[in-house]
Amino acid sequence: MELPVDICESLLERHPVARLATLGPAGSPHLVPVVFVRHGGDLWTPIDGKPKSGGELVRVRNVRKNPAVALLLDDYEVDWSRLWWLRVDGRAAVVEGRHPQSDPEIAEVAAALRAKYPQYDDVPLFRAEPLLLRITVVRVRSWCAGREALP
Amino acid sequence: MELPVDICESLLERHPVARLATLGPAGSPHLVPVVFVRHGGDLWTPIDGKPKSGGELVRVRNVRKNPAVALLLDDYEVDWSRLWWLRVDGRAAVVEGRHPQSDPEIAEVAAALRAKYPQYDDVPLFRAEPLLLRITVVRVRSWCAGREALP
Repeated sequence: MELPVDICESLLERHPVARLATLGPAGSPHLVPVVFVRHGGDLWTPIDGKPKSGGELVRVRNVRKNPAVALLLDDYEVDWSRLWWLRVDGRAAVVEGRHPQSDPEIAEVAAALRAKYPQYDDVPLFRAEPLLLRITVVRVRSWCAGREALP
Repeated sequence: MELPVDICESLLERHPVARLATLGPAGSPHLVPVVFVRHGGDLWTPIDGKPKSGGELVRVRNVRKNPAVALLLDDYEVDWSRLWWLRVDGRAAVVEGRHPQSDPEIAEVAAALRAKYPQYDDVPLFRAEPLLLRITVVRVRSWCAGREALP
C-alpha cells in the first residue's frame, strides 16, 4: 500500500536523511546520502562543510549536465512488517553564488536547514561559497508493508 | 577519507540494507531499498515475498534494458562525525527460472539469504518463480567523516 498523503508530507518535512541518485555522463547512476530541507515546495540540499573529497562533487557535476534526480526516504527495520519508503522523482538545479546576507530565499533555506539540523552549529553550512541543489518535485511514490509500518 | 578495505569487505557481507539505483527508459534514475547477500563475489538481491505493487517490478524492467546500477550502503547518524557510506557501481543481470532444488548456485544464494535474514522464516524468499538480480561489482567507493566514523 502507499503511504497516506499526510505522512508523506510529514516525512518530506522531517525525515533527516535521503539517498540522492543523479546521472553520470556515461549514463550510469550515482548515489550519495544527503541531508535536505523542504522550502517553498522544493527540496534543498546544501554542499556543506562535512569532510569531502576535493574538486567539484560528482552530484553537482552530474546535475549541471542532467537535471533528472531521485531521492529515496526510508528506514530499514529488522521487523519487515514495519518497512516503508518514499521516493521523489525530481528535477535538480545547481544554486550558487547567492548569499544568505543578500538573498532572502537563500536566507530562509539556510534558516530552515539550521532549524532542522542543529549539527550546523558546529559544521559549516556552506563551504567557501554557498552551493545547493534545489530539487523540484515531479512525482512522489511511496510504499509500506501495511498499517503497522506507518512511520 | 575512504573506509579501510577490510571494513568495506565486512559491510558488503553484513550490512542489512542497500539502496539500489537503476535507470528508467527515459534515462531517469529509479531508487528502492533492497536486502542483499554477497555470494561468489557478486551481490544478489531477491524479488521476495514482501508485499509489492502488481506487475513486473520497475527495478527488474529497468535492469533488463540497462544493466548499469549503483548500490549505496550507509547509516544515518545524528552525530555527523560518525557518518560513512560505501557505494558499489555495478552491472546487474536478471536471474530467473533457476530453482534452488535443481541449481546449486541458486541453492547457495538462497541459503546465504536465509542465513543473513531470519525474516525469511516468515516471508517467502521468492514469489511464484525464483527471481533475483545479480550485481557484478565494477567499482567500490567509500567515504567516512574520520576515524570515529569507522563502522
